[in-house]
Amino acid sequence: MPVPLSLDQDQSKLSQPFEFDLVARQGRARAGRFYTPHGELHTPIFAPVGTQASVKAITPAQLQELGASLILANTYHLYLRPGDELVASMGGLHHFMHWSNPILTDSGGFQVFSLSDNRKIDADGVTFKSHIDGSSRRLTPETAIAIQENLGADIIMAFDECAPPTDREYNQRAMQRTHAWAERCLQAKRRPDQALFGIVQGGIFLDLRSASAEFISSLGFPGHAIGGLSVGETKTEMHAVLETVDAVLPANKPRYLMGVGTPEDLVNGVMRGIDIFDCVLPTRLARHNAAMRRSGRLNLVNAVYAQDPSPIDANCTCYTCQNFSRAYLRHLIVAKEMLSATLLSIHNIHTLLQLTREIRQAILDGSFDQFAQDFFAQQAASTIDHFEGEP
Amino acid sequence: MPVPLSLDQDQSKLSQPFEFDLVARQGRARAGRFYTPHGELHTPIFAPVGTQASVKAITPAQLQELGASLILANTYHLYLRPGDELVASMGGLHHFMHWSNPILTDSGGFQVFSLSDNRKIDADGVTFKSHIDGSSRRLTPETAIAIQENLGADIIMAFDECAPPTDREYNQRAMQRTHAWAERCLQAKRRPDQALFGIVQGGIFLDLRSASAEFISSLGFPGHAIGGLSVGETKTEMHAVLETVDAVLPANKPRYLMGVGTPEDLVNGVMRGIDIFDCVLPTRLARHNAAMRRSGRLNLVNAVYAQDPSPIDANCTCYTCQNFSRAYLRHLIVAKEMLSATLLSIHNIHTLLQLTREIRQAILDGSFDQFAQDFFAQQAASTIDHFEGEP
Repeated sequence: MPVPLSLDQDQSKLSQPFEFDLVARQGRARAGRFYTPHGELHTPIFAPVGTQASVKAITPAQLQELGASLILANTYHLYLRPGDELVASMGGLHHFMHWSNPILTDSGGFQVFSLSDNRKIDADGVTFKSHIDGSSRRLTPETAIAIQENLGADIIMAFDECAPPTDREYNQRAMQRTHAWAERCLQAKRRPDQALFGIVQGGIFLDLRSASAEFISSLGFPGHAIGGLSVGETKTEMHAVLETVDAVLPANKPRYLMGVGTPEDLVNGVMRGIDIFDCVLPTRLARHNAAMRRSGRLNLVNAVYAQDPSPIDANCTCYTCQNFSRAYLRHLIVAKEMLSATLLSIHNIHTLLQLTREIRQAILDGSFDQFAQDFFAQQAASTIDHFEGEP
Repeated sequence: MPVPLSLDQDQSKLSQPFEFDLVARQGRARAGRFYTPHGELHTPIFAPVGTQASVKAITPAQLQELGASLILANTYHLYLRPGDELVASMGGLHHFMHWSNPILTDSGGFQVFSLSDNRKIDADGVTFKSHIDGSSRRLTPETAIAIQENLGADIIMAFDECAPPTDREYNQRAMQRTHAWAERCLQAKRRPDQALFGIVQGGIFLDLRSASAEFISSLGFPGHAIGGLSVGETKTEMHAVLETVDAVLPANKPRYLMGVGTPEDLVNGVMRGIDIFDCVLPTRLARHNAAMRRSGRLNLVNAVYAQDPSPIDANCTCYTCQNFSRAYLRHLIVAKEMLSATLLSIHNIHTLLQLTREIRQAILDGSFDQFAQDFFAQQAASTIDHFEGEP
C-alpha cells in the first residue's frame, strides 16, 4: 500500500524552490514533487540529455509535446563550446536553448575523467586538454560551480572524481577528494536560484558507498546524486550499491542516479529508492537505428522490417508509432534521411518518459510491486534479443 | 485591379477533382484554387521537396504547422529505393510518409538526364545506371506513369527530356521526343484520381517554347508544367520563356514552374502567370547553414553571429525566429547538432510559404503590383550579399 504523505494538490503554490515532497511510497519506491524555479518535477522522472544545449535531433517543442520536464546539459561541452560566458550573455541556458522547464547540469567531472590520457588530477582540480582544439583547460570545484552559475540550470552538481568502479584503492582516494571538493563547491556557490546536489562515490564497495552517503548527506545539500555507476560494474553490483545508499541518504531529499539508463534500469532504480534518472541512451540508440521497447530493442535497419507495415510498438502512443511503419523507418535509415533519428528519438524518449509516468502512477495507486513484477515477466517472455542494435 | 472570377467560397464543395478556379487576376498574376483528392491547393503555391519521401530534417507535423499543402517527391529516387511497388504495398506515398495533403511526383526524367555519363536515350525511353548500386534500369513514358501510379501522388508528370538550355538543335530533338512521350503518357495513364500534367520544353528558344506550349496544351492535360528552366540559363532568358509560354497556355489550367526557386524567382514567376513552384533550395540551404530572407541570405556559420541575440529575421513569425537567436543557431552549426538543419529548414520553408501567401493575398486585394514593386525595392536596398551562403 502507498503511504500518502501529501494530499494537498495546491500546496505547490506555497512551496519554496528545492523543497521535496514525498507524495507516496511503496517499499523503497517513492513518488514525489521537487520544486524548482522553472516548475515542479514529478518524480520518478527521466531527463533526456541535451549535451551541447540540444537534445539531439529534437526541437524543444517536440520535447514539450513528449511531456519532458527536466533535461540535462553537459558543463564540460558547454564550457568548451560555445563557452559559459557566452551562454550567460545570452540570458542563460534556458533562454539560449529555449527550454522553460527545469534544467540540470553536471559538473564536467565525468567527461574530464573520461579523457584518461589527456588530464592530470591534483588535490585542487584537474588540468586537461580540450577535445575540440587541444587547448589546456582547468576545472576545479570553484570553476565548475562558476561555470554552472553562468549556465544557470535549476539543478547543478558538485565537482567529483569518478574512479574505475572495481579499483578499491583508487575509489578510496577519489571518494576523499570528492568529499573535500563537495565542501568547496558548497562554499563557492553563490546563486540562490540553483540547487546544488552532492555526489556519492565509492565504486562497487559498499562500505565506501555507505561512508560517502553518510558524509555527503551531512553537508546539507538539497538533493543527492549517485555517481560512478553504469560505468562497467555488473547490474548486481549496481543494485547492491543503490540499496546501501538508499539506507543512508535522508528520505526527504531527492536522489539522482546519474547516467542511467534502460527501461529495466529505471524500474530497478525506482525499486531501490531513486527519483531522478538521465541518460543519452534514447537519443544515441535512435541515431544508431535502434528503437527501445520495454521488451527489448528493435534494430530497424534489419531487412526483416523492409515490408513491415506495423509500428515499432502497437501499444505505443508516441507520434512515431501513431503515424509511421517500420517499413518507412527502415527506408529513412537506408536512405540516410535525418528524419529517422528524429522519429526514433521521439519514440525512445517517449518510451522512457511514459515508463516513469506509469511507475509514478503505480506508486500513487499502491500497485508498483505488481507493476514491477509484470514488467520483468514481460521482459523475460520477450523473444527479442535485448542486445540487438547496441551502438 | 483584380478581376474577381469566382466569388462563391462554397463552390469548392461542388467542384470535381482537378478543376482549377481562377479566383482573381492582376496583370498576368493569378490567384486560384486547384482541387485534388487530398484537398484544395490555393495558388500561387510553393511545394517543399521530399525527394526520398521525407522533406529533409522536418516531420510531417512540422510541415503541417508551417501551412504546407503541396509537397513534391521524386519518382527516380523512390523507384530505386524503396521501390514503387513497396510504396504501393504500404498504401501509397500519402500513407507511407504520413502526408494527407496533396503530393506531386515528377516523372524521373530530370534525374535520369542528369546522369549524363550513365544513361542512353532512344526513341522509346532511357536506359541508365542506378546511382545506388550501378544496376541497369530503364524508364519509358509507360513505366514512368506506372511507377507514379504505384506511388499514388495527386499530381503526376509526363516523362520528358530536359536538354541543355542553349543548344538549339538538341532542344528541337528533345522537344519532339517530349511531345511524343506526352501522348504516350496520356495513353498509358489509368488512375482517375491523379492529374497528369504535360511539360513544355524548348530551352531558351522562344519559338520552340511557343510551339511546345501550343502542342502540349492541345492534348487536354488538366495542368501544364514548364520544364528545362533554372538549369543554367539567365534570369532574363527565363523571364522571356515564361512570358512566351504564358501567352500560349490556356488560362483555365494551372501552370507549374519546375525546380524554382528563390524568393525573387517566385515573385517573378507569379508576375508571369505561374501558379505552382517547387524547389529543394530551402532545405538544401538549411543543411548548408544558410537562412533565406526576402532581402538575401545569411550564412549563420559566420563568426559575426556568434554573440548575436537577434533572430534570423525580426519580422518573421516562424518557430525558429520566434524562439532562437542567431548565436544559438551558429552554436548548433559549429557543434554539428542536427537541430540546426531542422530549425533552418523550418525558417526557410516558412519564408517561401509566407511569401506565396502574401502574394496570393495581394492578388486578391488588387495590390500585387505594389507588392512586387516593394519586394524588389527591398531587395535592391539590402546590404546583404545575396550570394553569401550559397552551397
